[in-house]
Parts: sequence; C-alpha cells; structure tokens
Amino acid sequence: MPPDPSRSQLKIRRVHLDTGRENVVVVSRRSKALRADIFRGFSRVELRLDDKTLLATLLITDDDALAAQDEIGLSEPAFHRFAKPVGTLVTVAPAAPPESLEAVRAKIRGRTLDKAEIDAIISDLAHFRYSDMEIAAFLIGSASFITSDELLALTGAMAQAGTQLVWPDQIVVDKHCIGGIPGNRTSMIVVPIVAAHGLPIPKTSSRAITSPAGTADTMEVLARVNVGVEEMKSIVSSCNGCLIWGGHVNLSPADDVLISVERPLSLDTREQMVASIMSKKIAAGSTHLLIDIPVGPTAKVTTAMDAMRLRKLFEFVGDRFGRTVEVITTDGRQPIGNGIGPVLEANDVMAVLGNEEDAPRDLREKSLRLAAHLLEYDPKLRGGAGYARARELLDSGAALKQMQKIIDAQGPSKCSTDLGPSSFDVKAAHDGTVATIDCLRLNRLARTAGAPLDKGAGIRLFKKIGDRVEQGEPLYRVYTFEGPEHDLAASAAQQETGYIVNGHEVPPGRTPS
Amino acid sequence: MPPDPSRSQLKIRRVHLDTGRENVVVVSRRSKALRADIFRGFSRVELRLDDKTLLATLLITDDDALAAQDEIGLSEPAFHRFAKPVGTLVTVAPAAPPESLEAVRAKIRGRTLDKAEIDAIISDLAHFRYSDMEIAAFLIGSASFITSDELLALTGAMAQAGTQLVWPDQIVVDKHCIGGIPGNRTSMIVVPIVAAHGLPIPKTSSRAITSPAGTADTMEVLARVNVGVEEMKSIVSSCNGCLIWGGHVNLSPADDVLISVERPLSLDTREQMVASIMSKKIAAGSTHLLIDIPVGPTAKVTTAMDAMRLRKLFEFVGDRFGRTVEVITTDGRQPIGNGIGPVLEANDVMAVLGNEEDAPRDLREKSLRLAAHLLEYDPKLRGGAGYARARELLDSGAALKQMQKIIDAQGPSKCSTDLGPSSFDVKAAHDGTVATIDCLRLNRLARTAGAPLDKGAGIRLFKKIGDRVEQGEPLYRVYTFEGPEHDLAASAAQQETGYIVNGHEVPPGRTPS
Repeated sequence: MPPDPSRSQLKIRRVHLDTGRENVVVVSRRSKALRADIFRGFSRVELRLDDKTLLATLLITDDDALAAQDEIGLSEPAFHRFAKPVGTLVTVAPAAPPESLEAVRAKIRGRTLDKAEIDAIISDLAHFRYSDMEIAAFLIGSASFITSDELLALTGAMAQAGTQLVWPDQIVVDKHCIGGIPGNRTSMIVVPIVAAHGLPIPKTSSRAITSPAGTADTMEVLARVNVGVEEMKSIVSSCNGCLIWGGHVNLSPADDVLISVERPLSLDTREQMVASIMSKKIAAGSTHLLIDIPVGPTAKVTTAMDAMRLRKLFEFVGDRFGRTVEVITTDGRQPIGNGIGPVLEANDVMAVLGNEEDAPRDLREKSLRLAAHLLEYDPKLRGGAGYARARELLDSGAALKQMQKIIDAQGPSKCSTDLGPSSFDVKAAHDGTVATIDCLRLNRLARTAGAPLDKGAGIRLFKKIGDRVEQGEPLYRVYTFEGPEHDLAASAAQQETGYIVNGHEVPPGRTPS
Repeated sequence: MPPDPSRSQLKIRRVHLDTGRENVVVVSRRSKALRADIFRGFSRVELRLDDKTLLATLLITDDDALAAQDEIGLSEPAFHRFAKPVGTLVTVAPAAPPESLEAVRAKIRGRTLDKAEIDAIISDLAHFRYSDMEIAAFLIGSASFITSDELLALTGAMAQAGTQLVWPDQIVVDKHCIGGIPGNRTSMIVVPIVAAHGLPIPKTSSRAITSPAGTADTMEVLARVNVGVEEMKSIVSSCNGCLIWGGHVNLSPADDVLISVERPLSLDTREQMVASIMSKKIAAGSTHLLIDIPVGPTAKVTTAMDAMRLRKLFEFVGDRFGRTVEVITTDGRQPIGNGIGPVLEANDVMAVLGNEEDAPRDLREKSLRLAAHLLEYDPKLRGGAGYARARELLDSGAALKQMQKIIDAQGPSKCSTDLGPSSFDVKAAHDGTVATIDCLRLNRLARTAGAPLDKGAGIRLFKKIGDRVEQGEPLYRVYTFEGPEHDLAASAAQQETGYIVNGHEVPPGRTPS
C-alpha cells in the first residue's frame, strides 16, 4: 500500500522504556507532522509501514530527548514488535479500537458470545491489539459469567492462536500443577523418569511472574531453556522429553497476554484458569494429561469442594477436545522439598535424582506418585504397576542418566550455581512442634531476598509441619546477594516468620542471626 | 514517620511524559537501591515522604537519561501530585493494591456492595490510588448490574469526594445536557437569561474530551474560565451566574477519574451517566435542575424509550437527594446552531444574545425553551409565564448585558477569536433536500480539523435538515490552521460528508473546493 499523503509520517526512535506487555509510543506535544493533542481523545494510534501495522497507546512529551517534533519514540515492546530500524519513516494515525471490542462490550452487557466473536477477540489479543484496559474489560466481562460453550470456544481459540505442535507418537503425556506451593519442582523429576521409561513428555514451563521460581527458572540453573520449536522437536526425538521455557515456543500467546493483566488484578477465575492451562496443553499436542491440584489453607485452591469443581471443568474441556485428563489433589499445606528459589530447588531435584541420603523425601514421594500416574498411560504397563516402575527408574539411576541426557541436549546453563553469600537464620522462639507453614508468606520472602532474578537467592527450610523444634533452633535460612535485599528480607521475616510452632507465632525480635 | 532504613530511597527526577490521568514512575533496571525487577511482579509502587504518599505504576528503563541508578523518574501527573522538588529523597516500596479493590472483586463476582465499600472505592479513586486497569475493573464490574441502593451510594460518595458548594439562596438552578449534539451551546444563552431574571445559576462546564468543543472551551473564547471556588462565589454573588470550567472547582473528582477510562472503552451505562451528572450537580449545591436529553439517530440517546428510562433514573436519584429534577427530551437529529468548534459556536451565541438578524433560530428557540423551564422554578413567576419572560429578557438586551457582566467578572479571554485561515467547502453533489445530518461524523470532522485545541478550527453549516440545495452549493465550510489538518479533514470529508441529500449520500470526489 502506498503511503497515504494526508497521513503524518514520523521517524522511528527507540525509547528505552520497558512498558511490560503493552505497546507504548511517545510523541512530542509540538510534533510537526502529528498534532499530538488532537489524538488525546483517541489515546491509541496505529503505526503503518507497508503491510506492517502496530497498535499502541500514546504518551505525549515536551522533551526532545524522548521524541523530537518529527519523531515517534517506540518503547521496548513496541520497538521489538514493529521490528524496523531507528530512523525509518512510518505513517501514524489515530487508531479506532479493535472491532472485536464490540463483542467485549456485548459480553459486559450480559450477552453470550459465539465462536466467531471469541475467535476475533483472541486473535486481536494474540496480536497485541488490545490496550491493558481493553484486556481488563474482556477479563472482567467474562469473569462474572461464562457458558460451557464460551469456555470451549475460548480454549480452542487460544490453542489455535499460536504454535501448534504435532508429534509422531500416539501417546504424548504431560503434567501441570496449579502453582502456589513453594519448592514443588516435581516436573524436573517426573520428566526424566517418564522419558527414561520411553513415553514422550515434551514439557514446557513458565517463568515466575509473582512467585520466587518457575520450573523454567529452576531448570535454567542446570541447562539452557530458551529453546525454539525445531530444536525442541529434535531434543524430544532423541531424549523422549525436555524441560524448556514455553516463552520461546509461543504456545497460546493470547494466554500470556491475559495473564499479564489477570495477575496485577488478582482476577483468576476457575474458567480462565482451565482455558489458560488447557489451551497451552492442547497447543503442545499432549494426548494424556495429569493435573495436580495442591489443596491447603495458603495454596491457590483452599478446599476439597473447590478442587472438585475445578476437576470437573478440566475433565469437561479435556473430553470435548479428545484429550485424556486425570486430575489429582495433593497435600498443599506446606512447601515441597527444602529449597525455595532456583538454585536451592535445583539442588533438591538433583539430590532426589541422585538418590542422595539427605534428598527431601516429600519431593521424592510426590514425584514418584505423579510419575506413576503418567506411566500407567502406557498400555504395555500392567494396571497398578506405575509406582513400582517409577521407583525402579529412579532408584536404578536411569532417571538421573536421562536427566543428564536432556541437560546435554538442551545445552549448558550460563547461570552461576552459587548461593547468595549473605544469609541469616530464622529461629524458633520456643520449644514445640511446627503446626503450620504459610506458603504465600515464604513465597513473598524468597522474592524479597532476590529470587528468581538472583538464582542463588531464596530460602532453605530446616523444619516442616510436625517437626519438633527447640528454642533458638533455626527454622530456615534466607540467602541474599546484596545489602538492601538482606535488610528487606530480615525486616520482613522479623515481622512474620510464616511458621506457627505449637499454635504460637514466633514472636518478632529473635530472628536475624 | 521516620524513614524506614530497610526501605530504598531514591532521588526525584522529573520525566516530561504526559501519562494522562495515571501516575507513572520510571526506575532504572540497574537501580542501586531498588531492585526494579523484583518489583515486576508487583508493577505498582508507593512513594513516601513524611506523611505524603503516592501510588504509581512502575516502568523500567535502561536509559540513565530517564532515571539513573539512584533516581526515580516521575511522569508529569505524578510529579505534580507528589509536589516535591527535583532531587528530594523519597522512600519507594512495592505497593499492595488499594484495599477497596477487594470490594471491586466481590462486585465482579456478583455481590452487591454496601455504602461503606462504595465510599472506600470512591475515596481511593478520587485520590488517584487506582491504576487504569483497576478503574476499568470497577467500571465493568458495575456496568452489568447495579442496584438502586448502589446507585444512590455511588452518587452520594462521588458528590462528597471533592468540593461541596453551599449557597445562601433557597433556590439555586442548574441545567445539564446529555452531550453528543454539535453546536448546542444553550448554556451560554440560558445562564445570562436566568441570571438577568435574578435566579442564581452557578454553572460549571466540562472541556471537550472526545467532542470538538465543551461549553468551557467555547466560553473560553469570550472570558477566562479557569476560576477557583472563592472567585466563583464572588462572581455568582455579583452576577447571579457564571460560566466556568469545572476542573478548577474540583466537583466530584472521582467522576473525572472514571470518565478518563469510560471514554476510551466507550463504556457509558445509564447508571454511571446518572451518578456522574447528579454527583456533580449535588456537589455544586443546585436545588432545581433541568436535564436536556436530545434524542436522535446519531445522538447519545437514540430512542424515546431509552430517554424515558434515563428520565426515571434522574428523577429517582433527584428525589432521594432532595433535589427538584425535571427532564425534557429535545430534537437531537442534527446540530444546534451553525457553528461547530469553540470560536464558531461563540459567534453563534453572541449573535443570539445580540438579536442579530442571521442568528441561528434553532439555538435561540431551544435556549428560550430551556430558560423558560428554569424561570418557572421562581415561585414569584406565574405558571406558564416562563417563556414570555425569557423572550423578554433576551429581546430587550438584558441577557446580553448580563452576559457582558459575567464576562467582565470572569476576566478577559487570552484566546484569539480568529477563524482558521485555511478553509474548504463541502458541496452538494446534486439538487435535493437535506434528509439527515450525522452528528457523530461532523463531531469527528471538526476534531480532525483541529478543534478544540485550535479554537478557530471547526465547521460552519450552511444547510440543515429540510433545506433545499442545488448541485454544487456548499453544505458546510471547514476551517483549519495547518496543512496536515486541512489535508486530513479534506480526505475525511471526501470519504463521507455526513449529509444525506434527498436520500442519496453525496458521492466522494466532489467535495474540496
């Protein structure tokens, strides 16, 4: 398309502003070609160059260092997505909202959406055409009520909006855990066990958004995880499994966009959670899926009733998309394993795989249980034999060998495995028995200490629920890299340890060693 | 409160970014004191200095020109609201969402909110503690369903969140029009008529957000409109009336915040419109209120049924707050007056007040009708005598004299009254009668031409519905100040004139003179 002569052209400039997911551009209030203020009523603009377009939210500046009169400043996400060199002339015009927003408004007014409308919304979301406010409108509009048909349409549209993996095998297994539990790195044990048995398990994982570590962050301590689609296929073909970051594979990109707004608003609904997880797993080409729902007072799911409702939704969507879905509930009252934070969790994982004496038993047992369920999807395995087979693969060292093979195939990690050099212990204020451990509190404390950004920051637990402690005995140790994190974490731990011993909170003032 | 030593302190820097209503701050990714990435999971931060706090949305930068390692860059709205000098050390910490957001989430899940919850939400909104996404969450959560009690609580909370005017008079009248109709500057004629009669009418108006002119923008052509509360009181005491911008008086500030998100999302609901208008009028101390609802195919309200539903809501809220509310519907099929844009509309107004021969009759008649309703609130006036009294005050020049008095009291305008020097005519493609005029289209065209930023940009209409036109005869003239606006407006008018003559659209390609 030739440039429209009546439309303004501006030179691209790069503005080093990380605006998260949202495309943001900056224009001078004295812009020669573009009367920025005219656009204030619109607040969104469209950049166009040949066939390439980008919708962005407009900010105005009086500072030539951000954007001179003949320039348009592209924030980092806008610059990368538009992918044109600095200095390129682009056409800029006020942007009408995406047409699919009309369906969002209808949903807000209470109308049920049809498949075509949901497809259009998801396509616009996946192409970053919605502003954060518009994303919020869709999320909230569908938070109060969503029909079964809408849920299916949403899941299907999200699965189709990005990469869709196809595998040569009849059975492709996968697992997913409804997060919230610190530690809990079962995937890194389950995948090598199942892969060692011979079932394909191409696992993609997320990075932490609000937690101190995602499986991708922890695996990155051991191996490269930024792996693309073609490389992923070759790794799975040689190792039966992989443990990579989902971000490079682009499964269900609309889901990533929705999550970026869901999280700050704390807006998870059951239906959105199911659509999110199932869309990723369907796009990943899994045929047999195990969902782990930890239940506990500080877990994401707090009651058995909630877990059951969630299970039914997973089963319903799985059935309609022809996938075998099994949902189990697990103990979510406390962290799994002893480490919280990438390096500490990776150490736990390797201790379990290496059958080391001090390996955390809870992590080992939970991983064996999950692996057992997945192994029984193998028609050649005798019913009930899954657990014994999983233990055999773990105890014999076959799983560790498989993990080494996967690590070698993914390539070496560039991360240091050092723990934070600046640590302090949080100690019991009196004798007693550990009654409760607050998962939310420990997650937040590990983040304050620097995880996941500092791989070696985090928490090592010495005591779990039911353990006897004596006054002054350490409950856990916090590792940090820098002074400010140390002070912030110490002050947070002093305020509230997250442990209740014998029904008494550890009082403040006793904690930093 | 002493600075918390474990919290990070950063130096204030001013970043010349106009981020609209939202507080935005910029922190270096390599920030020494504040590990910015740790905060990414939070995305909102709290600035604190002594008792002063500010919630803001966090952006990350790699550019020391925006924020060095020991600095925090405050965008324009954040800088003005925090109101501390550049270089001041402030404490920065991750910010939890405002507590009232829990009530917003409950509303989204379908629960009805009580008065205390609505009060807390409105207070947080009025103090700029909500992010744009959070505002959207509240708007959408209450868009699908709101009870009568919630509507009353919302109106009351909004009215109480800002300035509340008190007048010495028993009767204080006011009028409001549910916008959408270009021209339609009746307030600037009604206020001097009613004030000349002796009834107090302290009118505050808005500036244009998505239209080519608000009453405040048009009045600004004739007089200063940025008037504060004390000055407003003295003007009304000496002139019985005023015509000022509401922004300086701070009536219902939460409403301004809500509107800033409603508009880009096109989310007006009846209830939100009523709460918005009534909260402003209650805070303004009006006792007797006239609401004008123009009804037409391209007006905000398109059917008589919709107008009636809206009328009932206004009456309900008015009654509960002890205000006399009268709602009338008017012809909203086409613009009122001949001018669209501040200078052109001000010319229309002064022509009507000056009883000039070519003054637009529709603007005169509608203003007389509205003034008549307001005058009859005067117990001393005989029932049915309002119209004659209004015409007497207008025809005798008393209204014009009153307007001059108000203009003198408010002070001289600093705006030029020149019309845009670059103009073009849009002409009829064939003989016929004007059948329809698209209000939305003409509003948008006048904005493209530069209004309201360029006071003298806009449209002068030569033909209205029912007028005979000959082929080639001008339908309207578009005034602009600069080349790009001229070209953009000409191209837009060529695409669609907004006029249908004799049932036929003026075809493209005939328009620019």
